[in-house]
Amino acid sequence: MPKLYVKDVLWKPGITVKELVDQFDGVGFQATHVSEAADLVYRMKVSGAKIYFTFTSNMVSSGLRGLFAQVIEYGLADVVITTVGGIEEDIMKATGERFPLGSFNADDVELHEKGVNRIGNIYVSNESYERFEGLIHQMIRDIYEKKERDEFGLVRLTPSELIREIGLRLDDPHSILYQAAKNNVPIFCPAITDGALGFHLFMFQQDHRDFIIDVVRDFANVIFSTSQDERKGLIALGGGVSKHHAILAALINGGMDYAVYMTTASHHSGSMSGATTNEAKSWGKIKDDSEAVTVIGDCTVLFPVMISNVLDRLYEDGVLKK
Amino acid sequence: MPKLYVKDVLWKPGITVKELVDQFDGVGFQATHVSEAADLVYRMKVSGAKIYFTFTSNMVSSGLRGLFAQVIEYGLADVVITTVGGIEEDIMKATGERFPLGSFNADDVELHEKGVNRIGNIYVSNESYERFEGLIHQMIRDIYEKKERDEFGLVRLTPSELIREIGLRLDDPHSILYQAAKNNVPIFCPAITDGALGFHLFMFQQDHRDFIIDVVRDFANVIFSTSQDERKGLIALGGGVSKHHAILAALINGGMDYAVYMTTASHHSGSMSGATTNEAKSWGKIKDDSEAVTVIGDCTVLFPVMISNVLDRLYEDGVLKK
Amino acid sequence: MPKLYVKDVLWKPGITVKELVDQFDGVGFQATHVSEAADLVYRMKVSGAKIYFTFTSNMVSSGLRGLFAQVIEYGLADVVITTVGGIEEDIMKATGERFPLGSFNADDVELHEKGVNRIGNIYVSNESYERFEGLIHQMIRDIYEKKERDEFGLVRLTPSELIREIGLRLDDPHSILYQAAKNNVPIFCPAITDGALGFHLFMFQQDHRDFIIDVVRDFANVIFSTSQDERKGLIALGGGVSKHHAILAALINGGMDYAVYMTTASHHSGSMSGATTNEAKSWGKIKDDSEAVTVIGDCTVLFPVMISNVLDRLYEDGVLKK
Amino acid sequence: MPKLYVKDVLWKPGITVKELVDQFDGVGFQATHVSEAADLVYRMKVSGAKIYFTFTSNMVSSGLRGLFAQVIEYGLADVVITTVGGIEEDIMKATGERFPLGSFNADDVELHEKGVNRIGNIYVSNESYERFEGLIHQMIRDIYEKKERDEFGLVRLTPSELIREIGLRLDDPHSILYQAAKNNVPIFCPAITDGALGFHLFMFQQDHRDFIIDVVRDFANVIFSTSQDERKGLIALGGGVSKHHAILAALINGGMDYAVYMTTASHHSGSMSGATTNEAKSWGKIKDDSEAVTVIGDCTVLFPVMISNVLDRLYEDGVLKK
Repeated sequence: MPKLYVKDVLWKPGITVKELVDQFDGVGFQATHVSEAADLVYRMKVSGAKIYFTFTSNMVSSGLRGLFAQVIEYGLADVVITTVGGIEEDIMKATGERFPLGSFNADDVELHEKGVNRIGNIYVSNESYERFEGLIHQMIRDIYEKKERDEFGLVRLTPSELIREIGLRLDDPHSILYQAAKNNVPIFCPAITDGALGFHLFMFQQDHRDFIIDVVRDFANVIFSTSQDERKGLIALGGGVSKHHAILAALINGGMDYAVYMTTASHHSGSMSGATTNEAKSWGKIKDDSEAVTVIGDCTVLFPVMISNVLDRLYEDGVLKK
Repeated sequence: MPKLYVKDVLWKPGITVKELVDQFDGVGFQATHVSEAADLVYRMKVSGAKIYFTFTSNMVSSGLRGLFAQVIEYGLADVVITTVGGIEEDIMKATGERFPLGSFNADDVELHEKGVNRIGNIYVSNESYERFEGLIHQMIRDIYEKKERDEFGLVRLTPSELIREIGLRLDDPHSILYQAAKNNVPIFCPAITDGALGFHLFMFQQDHRDFIIDVVRDFANVIFSTSQDERKGLIALGGGVSKHHAILAALINGGMDYAVYMTTASHHSGSMSGATTNEAKSWGKIKDDSEAVTVIGDCTVLFPVMISNVLDRLYEDGVLKK
Repeated sequence: MPKLYVKDVLWKPGITVKELVDQFDGVGFQATHVSEAADLVYRMKVSGAKIYFTFTSNMVSSGLRGLFAQVIEYGLADVVITTVGGIEEDIMKATGERFPLGSFNADDVELHEKGVNRIGNIYVSNESYERFEGLIHQMIRDIYEKKERDEFGLVRLTPSELIREIGLRLDDPHSILYQAAKNNVPIFCPAITDGALGFHLFMFQQDHRDFIIDVVRDFANVIFSTSQDERKGLIALGGGVSKHHAILAALINGGMDYAVYMTTASHHSGSMSGATTNEAKSWGKIKDDSEAVTVIGDCTVLFPVMISNVLDRLYEDGVLKK
Repeated sequence: MPKLYVKDVLWKPGITVKELVDQFDGVGFQATHVSEAADLVYRMKVSGAKIYFTFTSNMVSSGLRGLFAQVIEYGLADVVITTVGGIEEDIMKATGERFPLGSFNADDVELHEKGVNRIGNIYVSNESYERFEGLIHQMIRDIYEKKERDEFGLVRLTPSELIREIGLRLDDPHSILYQAAKNNVPIFCPAITDGALGFHLFMFQQDHRDFIIDVVRDFANVIFSTSQDERKGLIALGGGVSKHHAILAALINGGMDYAVYMTTASHHSGSMSGATTNEAKSWGKIKDDSEAVTVIGDCTVLFPVMISNVLDRLYEDGVLKK
């Protein structure tokens, strides 16, 4: 029989996030899962596991971006995987673009006429994309020119190399790409062309047939970023390619030892985004005896709440990098 | 154009729930909605609005129960509406029953053989229900015997009267019924027979044909619990009858001035549980110019996070009752 | 190992719903569940089980109402449980009210100004409610006057008696209440006051203190509507009180032998609406060895698709009533 | 005011899918959306629009695969976009692999021990993957050897070229790749390495440094697959990269004229998978004056129901290809 019982959660003046989440193990439903997620992330760090950290691009559109940069800075991510929209928006923010907050129920035709693009209740203006265009063209040219050619005379970059080179050219401590480059954390992006960046890479390749983005070689990089022998952990926020790529890499290396999924997707339709940590065990993507939890809900609330508890515990232990 | 922009949310050592939620207005997606919900609850209290507080019974099964009792104790609820399972489980907990925590993926046939009933990842044992049975029979008898008969010679109780009488017989500061009775906050329960209590009321009526639960008269009580002239606010956790009953009562009294919905249900199927605050405006259940927000997610995490921010602000203002 | 394998679903000209659903057992995900649901409903009918049929009021707002009346007419429902909105809207439709179709994204303030109330993408005008008011007052008066008084001199009606009396006064073959009354199928409605009807009952009771809606006695009626010895089946569309009341009644009678749930709610928050058929087994609401399936999705599509397959099979067998 | 009113949906013996869906416009909620989706797909075909057809790989795991091949065969798809899992599983099925049907609640550790991998309630055995490995290596080698080298001496294939070459080597009328190759419909797959195929491409590149998968050039292919002047339509099943890539391509070409989304994802978290057709209008991904609908639900049921109605109408019109 279970050893835990439901406990009344109680507020007290000035309650910290750590104190609140410490109570969540007795609350039930998703609060219990948030509590378990915090424990797992704490333990994957303390155990010395290599941590895969994946998220979808809409989360980089949101204010989570600064927290993601902290997670990398403080040493809680060894491999990052995301989609190209997140790469673009991190660069935009690092170069001064501001994203207005609006409404899920906006008049989208009116927004379109005003040159405003909507991501849920977050807006991005056409101007931001235009300034990004100028900037990224220049960066791609610069990276292309400085890169040594391979034996075929090609400038052959993997997506993770390209992203690292961009990160080295940014100067913003709240930037994911900046912190990743600075802390030697690779960022993988398997669908690198599925965004504005894809268009700019295509435009550049039009004039430079010798410019190649080599996605196949990055597959080697992602699987060799950890090994069979190392303990491995996963924090997967949202689903899609980012999540799948991490567990695919883990599958080849013997599976994850720890896994935390946080998503709004449900498993009923058999989608990758809603696939549970249990399902991943059937594949060997997560080890049979691993510790794993799926938290259902929106990461903009659940992730800051969960990770603040973890960061406070690691801070108290003196384990946080820096 | 919007005045708010996305801001990077940042952790710092010992961050309080208030400090974290204070950052949520710049995060986007549901974090923005949690921030708006906290502002609305704060303002409904400060404005002197009568506050309807509704929740579903599974939340009383969870550890939220103690926090709900605090919400009543500190004066943030003037009218409570819930379903009968919540009434039963508050009584059980107030009389010493403990609810084990288990798993959403339990073997339910095995649980059944062991006499364990499952609500998500929370368990209730048959023994708890059996002890509840003895207790509630005695309470019903006692209430019946002390109640004056009406002009027809009937013992005629409304659900809210019955619940209040039970609350007066409990002695647990973490109990919803106890705090409601002590603070003269009525608890309405339109579907009073839809639970174990329904069975026990039926058993008692078998031997006492003069015993009547008058649900029609409680309709008068719920609509007269506020008036057209008063400002009115709503905190509706989850959906179903509890939520609907509050906005129905408000409709008759000119609609809510403030409304916060917190739910996992989506609006796509036209269900009451997923119906948005906007939809309620078409009915006049919420005033056209009211302030309202729908937060999507599990209340076991979102409610403690949101309300802790509100309670801290009211505490700093010296507005908290007690 | 499984005996079923995924099969390619194929279209052919003029494909019937029966032929399509017959292919669903090899499709996977929710198609498999729709196929299982159709098999279970077919078998509960053929086995002679007493069938509980529950649905939420928004489904009666929708065009499903005519199909629900057919389900009763053809003998696939022995006990109906719903919420009061469904009762009201069935009466409205039976007396000529028409519900416009609109949009989920309507301007609700504008709708409110026009006297239009929204339920998802379905509208109900204030005029419809006003005509309903006149009608229902007259019906209540008529029922009150014809009903014999009890030993206390009271006019004491249970919700199911009241609903039956209304059904006997309607004349529309597509009406749920009409078909239920005609076919002696009781309709239970535990939260009878949670709607416009509640208000009208209250108004009537103001002038008739001897008028009582006895919800406790209807608890006896719902549990005695089947017995331990009978086979029992459940078709629960949506969640809430309707669904819970059916499985509560079954619990007392030894549990359901067959159960089909169809809902958009997920189980992650521990809500009744999202509670699975497995969870119900832990309670004994559904027998351990029963056959049960939960189909996730919107009933306006899934139910007609599933039940058309069942009705065609029963029609071919000559088992359909009438 | 609206011109459509709710109508009772009715069953009749032998009802066809076309007849049932023809009634859906009067049902409300998602049935209305299914009806609108059928109308839009019918009209995009009749108008001569170029149709983008996107789906996620789990749908190819399901029995929808055969229907997808029919959709291509009958001329309802001009451009296909999917994820690599779908490519792999279509090849497996075309070469005789069978996928067992199981349960969402399987014991995943036990499955893992048996070498069975789970996708919702669909299983894939390790043996299937092993046979796929042998097969795909041989195909890659064959394609590599027959392909002309470019000016740098490279064998440079885009993902869509590779997929077409594989399709030409299959012989199964129910195969998506076979029908696409036969009917000159390109299949794009931006994240081509995110699956077993990625591993096999990497293994092949280990020994063949001159072997390049050029994702950047496929970006040109996807945007030049339609033009500004052509009418454009979209059928997007599920979300993720497949959906995003289609609307990104459309954005560059002036936006979609028609769009049908079918998904289980909700928009509350700002994810791409849940992003609505309205949101896409703010971006110009869908034209402001386009006709668009989002249907919420599982495609394994909704898509066959919807598309059968369309195919029957086009068949009656004599418009179906072949």
